[in-house]
Amino acid sequence: MEKIKVLFHVSENEIWQKTIANITNYFKDVEENTVHIEVVANAGAVASYFANQDRPQLLQQMEALAQRGVDFTACRNALSAHHLDEQSLPSFVRVVSGGITEIVNRQRKGYLYIKP
Amino acid sequence: MEKIKVLFHVSENEIWQKTIANITNYFKDVEENTVHIEVVANAGAVASYFANQDRPQLLQQMEALAQRGVDFTACRNALSAHHLDEQSLPSFVRVVSGGITEIVNRQRKGYLYIKP
Amino acid sequence: MEKIKVLFHVSENEIWQKTIANITNYFKDVEENTVHIEVVANAGAVASYFANQDRPQLLQQMEALAQRGVDFTACRNALSAHHLDEQSLPSFVRVVSGGITEIVNRQRKGYLYIKP
Repeated sequence: MEKIKVLFHVSENEIWQKTIANITNYFKDVEENTVHIEVVANAGAVASYFANQDRPQLLQQMEALAQRGVDFTACRNALSAHHLDEQSLPSFVRVVSGGITEIVNRQRKGYLYIKP
Repeated sequence: MEKIKVLFHVSENEIWQKTIANITNYFKDVEENTVHIEVVANAGAVASYFANQDRPQLLQQMEALAQRGVDFTACRNALSAHHLDEQSLPSFVRVVSGGITEIVNRQRKGYLYIKP
Repeated sequence: MEKIKVLFHVSENEIWQKTIANITNYFKDVEENTVHIEVVANAGAVASYFANQDRPQLLQQMEALAQRGVDFTACRNALSAHHLDEQSLPSFVRVVSGGITEIVNRQRKGYLYIKP
């Protein structure tokens, strides 16, 4: 059976915590192997992929979800605009050439869009 | 004819007023019986379902829309996380086990997603 | 081939700059004549269509995108609620009777929804 495909669009750092909770809760309701979740971070939200003393647990929570199959991506345009080094991203983050391009392409492939 | 199905996702208390205005205005443009509107409140936004001295009219406005057929729901995970008592919700609010699960399931059934 | 259709929903003035960057970046990844982009501004976001000393470049950036085929619209309900004069809108902005109605109708025609 085809997987349910869900895309979370994160464009502000402030909604990361909500996004983590959203996905964690969703995993209580579905079998993990019946769904594919992609998180597209663009604009300022890409900054949260880098170590942050204020929220030390955030990256750990992301990584735990990545280990459960969640695909975390970062928009290259946003990394560049915020002077963030792509090479310093955690290994579980995939860089996409454009966040909006990724969102459009995924929706065209049947991903359901959610803005946390 | 099949009804137009629209889902409003409310994840912050600050956007409730906008959501009420959105739906009220939309009802000026469509016949109410040709559309089904569901509002899914999750994260902190579930707090607005409870009496609030700062915005006494909000619950009345929600209830008036509920009487016109709008289906208001609250995410159980969010109620629990914010220590809010499900039993004290207004009678027009339906509790769903997970807000994101509801949004995914509704989109799969053809509901159009809007984040006010 | 049918164009890719994308709708950007802007409901707060604060996300206009992000929206402009989103579309500008997207145009780096696609042929402009293979995509149709519509921006629907409602709620307080319609105010940014009027001259603003704090952000003098914003209208120029919008107009440049309009010249590349982006369709900018303003919700009449929102203009009225904010006492803004429809006649004073820049010529590249199209007024729609209701922002939500426009978003629903466009999604029904296959437009992909993005909230910047």
